[in-house]
This record gives sequence, C-alpha cells and structure tokens, in this order.
Amino acid sequence: MFSEKTKNKIIEFDEFSKGAVDSLYPNKIENKKLIESIQYSFFGGGKRFRPALTFVVADLLKVETKQILPWCLSLEMIHTYSLIHDDLPCMDDDDFRRGKATNHKLYGESIALLAGDALLTEAFGILAQFYANESGNLVKLINELAFISGLRGMIGGQFLDMELEAATIDKIKLMHQMKTGALISGCFSGPGIIKGLAPDKINKLKFLGQEVGFLFQVKDDILDYQDKNQDSKNIVPFLGGIEKSKIFIESETDKLLQEVSHLLDTLGTELTPTNELSFLLKWNQNRNL
Amino acid sequence: MFSEKTKNKIIEFDEFSKGAVDSLYPNKIENKKLIESIQYSFFGGGKRFRPALTFVVADLLKVETKQILPWCLSLEMIHTYSLIHDDLPCMDDDDFRRGKATNHKLYGESIALLAGDALLTEAFGILAQFYANESGNLVKLINELAFISGLRGMIGGQFLDMELEAATIDKIKLMHQMKTGALISGCFSGPGIIKGLAPDKINKLKFLGQEVGFLFQVKDDILDYQDKNQDSKNIVPFLGGIEKSKIFIESETDKLLQEVSHLLDTLGTELTPTNELSFLLKWNQNRNL
Repeated sequence: MFSEKTKNKIIEFDEFSKGAVDSLYPNKIENKKLIESIQYSFFGGGKRFRPALTFVVADLLKVETKQILPWCLSLEMIHTYSLIHDDLPCMDDDDFRRGKATNHKLYGESIALLAGDALLTEAFGILAQFYANESGNLVKLINELAFISGLRGMIGGQFLDMELEAATIDKIKLMHQMKTGALISGCFSGPGIIKGLAPDKINKLKFLGQEVGFLFQVKDDILDYQDKNQDSKNIVPFLGGIEKSKIFIESETDKLLQEVSHLLDTLGTELTPTNELSFLLKWNQNRNL
Repeated sequence: MFSEKTKNKIIEFDEFSKGAVDSLYPNKIENKKLIESIQYSFFGGGKRFRPALTFVVADLLKVETKQILPWCLSLEMIHTYSLIHDDLPCMDDDDFRRGKATNHKLYGESIALLAGDALLTEAFGILAQFYANESGNLVKLINELAFISGLRGMIGGQFLDMELEAATIDKIKLMHQMKTGALISGCFSGPGIIKGLAPDKINKLKFLGQEVGFLFQVKDDILDYQDKNQDSKNIVPFLGGIEKSKIFIESETDKLLQEVSHLLDTLGTELTPTNELSFLLKWNQNRNL
C-alpha cells in the first residue's frame, strides 16, 4: 500500500503519537481505563492513510516530516474519534472494526463516548502545543481543523449521510465530499499552510485533496456494491455500474495527478515529482479491501 | 442572580453568540435539524454562569467585553456540549433539563451526539476566528481550552465521576475540581491571558477559579442532600453535615475574595474593587436552585 519511504515515516508517526498521547493523561487519575480505551482505538491497526497521504504531499512541497507530524497526529485523532462515535449504538451500531471489537463493545458506551470527546478536544491542544512557536500558522491550522472536521466538513457530512433519503448523484457527492473528503483535504491543505503558500494555492490544494477523498469513497462503494439489496447511497449505479465506475476512478486519478503537477509547476520551486502520490492513488484503484 | 451590569453583558453575549453560531452552518445543508438542535441547547435557557463570571473577572482586570466575548462563547459551547453528551442514555440518561426535554429526547440520540461533537469542534474554531490578530494569545487560549475541557480537566473529571466507588473527601474534591472546577477556572484564566499577565499570575487566577467551581459544587450538593438514599459522592457528610457545609462555603468564599483582592494588589494597576465578584459568590451562598 505505501512505499518504503512512507512506511518509515508512519513508524516515526506512531512513535511520536505514542509520546504525545500518553503525555496528555493526568497522573492523578489512577484508573487507566480511559487512556487504555483511547490507545486501543488509536493504536488499533488503522491504515494511517491520512498521515501517509499528508507525508506524501509534504514531500511534494518540501515540508519536513517533523514540521508536519503534529498536524498528522491531529488529523488521525479526529479520524479516530469519528470512528469511535460512528460505531456507537445510536449511530451505526457496529460490534466490530478492523476485525476487532469496537471501542464501546470492549469498554462500554460511556467510556467510548468520553474517549471520542477526548481525542477531539486534544487534537486541537496538540496543535497549540507543537505549533506554539509558529503562531501565524497555528491560527490557520486551527481554523482549518475546525472547518474540515466540524459543521462545514465531517460532522456536516455525517448528518447529510443520516438524513439522505432520496439520493441523487449530486447529493451523494456532496455527502462524501463533506463526510470523508473534508478531512482528507486536510492532508493537502496542512502542508500547504506550513509551507506558507498563498491562500489561493492552499484552496487549490484543498480542492484536490477533497477529490482524492471522493475517489477513495467511490472505490469503497465499488467494493461494497451488491446487485441485490443495494445501499441506496452507493454511487456505483449513478456512475453507470462497476466497470464505468472503475474507469471513472482511473480517468479522474490521471486528471488529478496532472492538476497536482501543474500546481507544483506554478509554485516555481524545485519540487519532487509526483511518483509517491501516483503510487498511493494507483493503490486505491487496485485495492481489494 | 447577576447585577444589572452583568445582565446587560449577557444580552450582548447572546447576540454575539447567535451571529457566530449561525454563521457556522453551511448553506449547502438544506436540512436544518442539526443547527436547530444546537440552537435548542445553546439558547435553551442556560444560566450563562460561565460567561457572567468571565465578564466579572475581565472587569476586575480591565479587559474589555468585546475582547473576551469569543472566549466566553467557547466556554459556553464546551459547557453546552458536555450537558448534551451527559444527558445521553449511555451517560446519565436524563429526559429533562431546565424543565425542558433534553436534546436527544427531542432530536434523537444520533443528532444529539453530532450536536455535541459540533459544539466541541467549533469552540476551538471560534477562538481561531476571533483571535486571529492576536496569535500569541491564541496559542495560550487554545492550550488552555484543551487543558480545562480535555483529559486534564472536564473529561478526566467526568471519567472520575463514573468510576468513583469508595468515595473519600480527597477523591470527591479532585473529581469536582476536574469535572466542574476546570471549566470554571477558565473564567479566570481567559481574562488573565488576554490581559497578558505573567504565567504565575495566570496560574494563581486559575487556581482561584477552580476554587469558585468547587464552592458551587458544594452548594449544589447541599441543595441535593437527602438524609436517606444519599448519593455516596455527595460531599455534605464529609464536611460534617448541612450546617457545617454552609459555614464552609461562607468562610471559603471570604478567603477567596481576600485572595483575589491580594492578587489584584500585586498587579499594581488601578483595578476595580471586587464588589461584582462578591455579589456573584454571595448569590451562590444563598441560592435555592
């Protein structure tokens, strides 16, 4: 799935995250169940797709790994909290995730709720802690994290998903762009902010990231697609079936890579070619789970 | 409960909050139920104690109302989300709050969960939006909000409350200091940060705020106290009964006011006397609900 280079960065990410998350737990709370529940979900075998994609984009922009690590951690904390809350009985009511018991099945609903709330809260604290010396960037990063994970992003999309009845392709696309695409757009905008790019370039990056998120969702829908008892929100029939959906991903991926290359050209610096990004997007085209 | 001066500031606070909260809801979400659910809880008759206390402290430090409004809004958003999540069936399972249906009874559990998540997320966004031009303060305010509302504060205290079995006065006090005191300490630390006070002064303010929160909790426990079927976490018996608990609040309130006066003296500026704070704390002593 990831290149060796990216895999090594994910190892670095996990080490960094472990220290940062552990340091947030107060010694005065003797009972460790809440932090165990947080660690169970955060270090429970997630693909680390968002950090990986962020590292790839950071590389394209020549942003150093250590500069982007806290942003990656915040994104992954938000992603993790959203999974914990989504799995709760009042939402999707899932007993298993990644082949393991969901957080609330193991720790109970009330701890799962708090674990999610804590990951969400501390995602912002991590940014303030690690970007304290770059306060100009911090303003932008906090704004961005609230935008992509709040009402205008992930939470808004989650609500659209819940409320969507008569699905149309536009409504499904909007739902995915907000629910999944927004957070993934942060894999592009975060490095752009830290690089100090102009707002129009950051917005362009953000748009491209949202498209990447959408293409991942289309692939998920292809993998989930069943002829019978089809989920009415699956996008495959709207794209004309499985084969046409695969072709859609392929052509949109090519277009996207061209747009990234073009954007990098306009930045006028000696930037890395898009090989790693291409690798990640091709992996999406061919994955079976 | 509040002086006329503070009441007027609360009117200003509500107007400011209405504009700020409404602006967060994306036009592209046609269905308004999520924002209605947020508005229902946020504008649903809360006492606005945290904003009021913050205005009083800001006044003591000669921090202008408009400078402190966004901080007040963030605190109240965190407070509101915590009530929505606490009322959920997996937590306290309450059907009524302030004499009205709880959020999830009216809007359903899934929307209530998202409404809480959204208020929590956007509380941080509000700070970045309104303190963008004071990025040095923003770093401190974001750190502070994460501290007081996360694992080291409110969420940690909520967990302690859930897990507390064999209660001792020290454990109950720690639980209250974290669960209620931490967020109320923000009513003191926020104005201190915006005033640009040195870290030791801010910590002192924060400590005093935490004590105020504790005294409010003791008063709540006095009002909740019943001879029979007593909640094992009620602090009244540990303080020697109702009368001794009342005397405890009285003497601690006097001590606290002296400490605030002393702190203001050390700041060496021409600061307001503590009349308004005294008014608020005496109200706590005498309130019947």
